[in-house]
Amino acid sequence: MNAEGLTHHTSSRFNEDLERIRASVLEMGGLVERQLHDALGGIDSGDAHVVVAVAQQELRINQMERSIDEDCSRVLATRSPAATDLRLLIAVLKTITDLERIGDEGEKIATIAAHMAASERPRSRYRELRHIGALVSTMVRDALDAFARLDADLAFKVARRDRTVDEEYEAIHRQCITFMMEDPRTIRRALDTMWVVRAIERIGDHAKNICEYVIYTVHGKDVRHTRLEDAERELRLAAAEAAAVAGPVIELSPAGNKLPS
Amino acid sequence: MNAEGLTHHTSSRFNEDLERIRASVLEMGGLVERQLHDALGGIDSGDAHVVVAVAQQELRINQMERSIDEDCSRVLATRSPAATDLRLLIAVLKTITDLERIGDEGEKIATIAAHMAASERPRSRYRELRHIGALVSTMVRDALDAFARLDADLAFKVARRDRTVDEEYEAIHRQCITFMMEDPRTIRRALDTMWVVRAIERIGDHAKNICEYVIYTVHGKDVRHTRLEDAERELRLAAAEAAAVAGPVIELSPAGNKLPS
Repeated sequence: MNAEGLTHHTSSRFNEDLERIRASVLEMGGLVERQLHDALGGIDSGDAHVVVAVAQQELRINQMERSIDEDCSRVLATRSPAATDLRLLIAVLKTITDLERIGDEGEKIATIAAHMAASERPRSRYRELRHIGALVSTMVRDALDAFARLDADLAFKVARRDRTVDEEYEAIHRQCITFMMEDPRTIRRALDTMWVVRAIERIGDHAKNICEYVIYTVHGKDVRHTRLEDAERELRLAAAEAAAVAGPVIELSPAGNKLPS
Repeated sequence: MNAEGLTHHTSSRFNEDLERIRASVLEMGGLVERQLHDALGGIDSGDAHVVVAVAQQELRINQMERSIDEDCSRVLATRSPAATDLRLLIAVLKTITDLERIGDEGEKIATIAAHMAASERPRSRYRELRHIGALVSTMVRDALDAFARLDADLAFKVARRDRTVDEEYEAIHRQCITFMMEDPRTIRRALDTMWVVRAIERIGDHAKNICEYVIYTVHGKDVRHTRLEDAERELRLAAAEAAAVAGPVIELSPAGNKLPS
């Protein structure tokens, strides 16, 4: 698929519909990013008030999910989209579910942050959470960027980072168990850390899901439940074969393939 | 919506498409139910081998998710469905994501069951897990039943049970923390229990989501993020108003409204 497929559509009203939906998803994504930033900030700063702001953001995120859902249904019902346009709409329906669930996890993090703020802080001041939190925040931002530009190459790159997140998660998890066993007085604090790191790890999963929907929209290929390296190699081979037949080299996500964001 | 809306459709091929998709979702649901049964059985029996069977079921569940997804896309692209048919397809697209994630949680439970099988079993033999596990298994079965019969009344009832699950979850969670603090030697076992009960609680959330999609299909109303009692009251009022205008009483899910399953 290429940007022309979306922009040179016979119906300009239809294009406006798609553009509006895309813009709404990015707006919802922006809200989710801000909420995650505030929730993680709450852990870092030990400020319990963050939980109120995050809960308000969560309400707004839920409203946006419903309104984008309705918008997609209306466009599906009235415009009978096909090919890339249809895939984009299906991808949006799924993406907003993942964004909403990132919002849920963000709210959980803020709630635990408020709890942590009320108890004694460890000397490390949750440094390990800061690192994995930054990793996952970047994943969310880049997944939304891949969605905005329909950039499958970037989507593959971001999705692969989920492994690093899983490794960090496992390491922090093991460390927490060690702390608990060594000093039972740290049990509550270690559990709080474990729940936060679990929520962060889940947000990484959701960001990866969004990347997979981008790849599906661009290539029409469902890469869930397959090794990302295998899926990427397969798509590169298909592109090379197409190039051998058609002449000019087709890149996975050429620069001209980006939509204005 | 009523059963006639689906069965007396102008295109009989289209009806066959919808029926096939519905049947596939129920087949996928059956697989998920069996997998959950096996995973929970693994905790009960202390049989570590269950993890292999559950992993195989998980592969099959993932395959079904992809194939139903493709089927829905094809029908959306070729049949331009509207109204209830469109809502059913959107509901299916979302339902299979939740079913697949129940499969993920089932696999996690089986993995922890294998871990538990290798360690000393508590005298209670995880009785508390058996209870919440049974609660959630019934929720999944009834949610699929509500989907099969497009029975919004049942969907409301099942969705409301999620609160009981959350309360059980909180109780077991608190109990685990108490055990850990009293006897640090139980930390690992208590953590295993906490992760299992967390996975079970999440399965309850997914079953509730499926119920919400059933209500959306039947009534065209998005009841996510609203109190279920408020949504149900609102729908009953709308039905009563419609009855006052139209004459005969319209029930929320009359017996004649059930599809053959």
